[in-house]
Amino acid sequence: MRKFINDPENVVDDMLEGLLLAHSDQLKSVRKDNRALVRADAPVQGKVAIATGGGSGHLPLFLGYVGKGMLDGVAVGDIFASPNPNQMLDATRAIHGGKGVLYIYGNYGGDVMNFDTASELADLENIRVESVVATDDVASMPKSHEQQRRGVAGMFYLYKLAAAKAETGADLDEVKRVAEKANSRVRTMGVALSPCILPAVGHPTFHIGEGEMEVGMGIHGEPGIQHGKIQSADEIAKTLVSSILQDMPIEKGQKVSVLINGLGATPLEELYIVYKAVHTLLEGYGIEVYSRYIGEFATSLEMAGLSVSILNMDEELRELIDVPFHTPFRVQI
Amino acid sequence: MRKFINDPENVVDDMLEGLLLAHSDQLKSVRKDNRALVRADAPVQGKVAIATGGGSGHLPLFLGYVGKGMLDGVAVGDIFASPNPNQMLDATRAIHGGKGVLYIYGNYGGDVMNFDTASELADLENIRVESVVATDDVASMPKSHEQQRRGVAGMFYLYKLAAAKAETGADLDEVKRVAEKANSRVRTMGVALSPCILPAVGHPTFHIGEGEMEVGMGIHGEPGIQHGKIQSADEIAKTLVSSILQDMPIEKGQKVSVLINGLGATPLEELYIVYKAVHTLLEGYGIEVYSRYIGEFATSLEMAGLSVSILNMDEELRELIDVPFHTPFRVQI
Repeated sequence: MRKFINDPENVVDDMLEGLLLAHSDQLKSVRKDNRALVRADAPVQGKVAIATGGGSGHLPLFLGYVGKGMLDGVAVGDIFASPNPNQMLDATRAIHGGKGVLYIYGNYGGDVMNFDTASELADLENIRVESVVATDDVASMPKSHEQQRRGVAGMFYLYKLAAAKAETGADLDEVKRVAEKANSRVRTMGVALSPCILPAVGHPTFHIGEGEMEVGMGIHGEPGIQHGKIQSADEIAKTLVSSILQDMPIEKGQKVSVLINGLGATPLEELYIVYKAVHTLLEGYGIEVYSRYIGEFATSLEMAGLSVSILNMDEELRELIDVPFHTPFRVQI
Repeated sequence: MRKFINDPENVVDDMLEGLLLAHSDQLKSVRKDNRALVRADAPVQGKVAIATGGGSGHLPLFLGYVGKGMLDGVAVGDIFASPNPNQMLDATRAIHGGKGVLYIYGNYGGDVMNFDTASELADLENIRVESVVATDDVASMPKSHEQQRRGVAGMFYLYKLAAAKAETGADLDEVKRVAEKANSRVRTMGVALSPCILPAVGHPTFHIGEGEMEVGMGIHGEPGIQHGKIQSADEIAKTLVSSILQDMPIEKGQKVSVLINGLGATPLEELYIVYKAVHTLLEGYGIEVYSRYIGEFATSLEMAGLSVSILNMDEELRELIDVPFHTPFRVQI
């Protein structure tokens, strides 16, 4: 197997130990099994706390977004598997600063079930919890079924904007409102060129032929909506952007933020080539790219591929997008 | 070909156009062909300017290190090919703020020849230029031939420390001294698990078998020093760290900085697993990991692999390592 690991069963534990050795100034573990991590200064009193969680194998998603100006805590699952409710509850307890806790996570069956249970358990301890489930992946369900869509890289915007709102001292309802607004205004389309390899399996669990691409493939290898020969970067950008704009029309003159997310093995050079195409297309529609993020934000181990997310901003989101944050994985100043 | 590109001949041009569209607030082009980029606020008067350059395909190396608190300019070559002296000279002219220019680059034939020519051309224009050539790759030449070694990811430390020194207002000799000191105190060992694909070729130009690893392979696929079945992360870390410490003994109680660099396709999860092993080994030797960088710092397109660099710091380097910087690709605060 082409991986830098020890026992495949210990991949997540080894990774978490490395992470805590590296970043103990910014993160702390609140469980013996390290499956709940929080900001080193948690709980932050008088601020709405935000927690997330999900399966491992997507770094910097999820735990890479815990830090100042971003999230307060995270529950960490095995590779591509949901964390359990107790792990979520321990994160929740450790971050609650008296103003309630918002869960933001992606729409996957196990995560929804477990976060709902954690939320009920927190309620018994008089911690008020609200939840916003990210559903930005256009390809995962057709229009009119938006709420059943999966959450992918666009979740970064829910985190970033809700966290920026929480920094202002806003209450839980307000922070939740911003997360919901971000979710309603962001769409993502992805394309994969190669599968990824689960450490415990040792070989790819799905197949993409050499020189082929799968448009709309999910970050766990969920089947896409279009399969064929790989096209040029410009053509691919056009497919992704037009799918997004068909699903969520954006008026001329609007300001957007664009996220070009690498899925693991895609060189940064290629992400910039795709950014050029996306920027040029949007400009052609009269849409202004006000901000952009280019790099790895939500990966699938070593999958070759990328996704494009577009956030259609109103005045409120435009102000929140500029708020600085500081995590071990990414800094915005 | 498994790549997001348009015409393979235009990969670097397309990438640079994307980069300039994305980061025009931080970077500007000083040539029509965009092959010389400098800080948006260049030249910074009264500061020693630092330039680098080299072939493309290694992002964030080289151009990703241009920015505040880091480098002033970069000459950009084609994929894995040196930029030419005129491109270097244009960068030099645009960043010279009256205190001279330091070139820091990796030890590769074409780069050395072209930077030397650029330096002579700059001299004719009364711009004083000094050069420091990075030679951190232990595996590329045996001990006692250190000066013939290649420069790889450890070059990050030369940039970071020399730039921090330049920020203090130090003169060219002092900044050069710090870059040389960093070079003499940093060593890198890499290991590759897969080849990479040159866009203009379309298939790998060298071979690593499935489940095999090549210790000491260069970032352009230069042959390594040890070939065999892939070992566990702990064993690999031991091989890399002991090779470094054999080459550059570090005394108990010393403070080091560690760089775990992904070569392209290696998941961040695995870099943290290796970090855990490296940290634990060094701790066992009584060496303190004072700072660490974990991520992609010098890649080889989509090569799977990683390198470990260790910087043995004295008091001066320890102070300089903490100085903030801000580039489009990386921020330290």
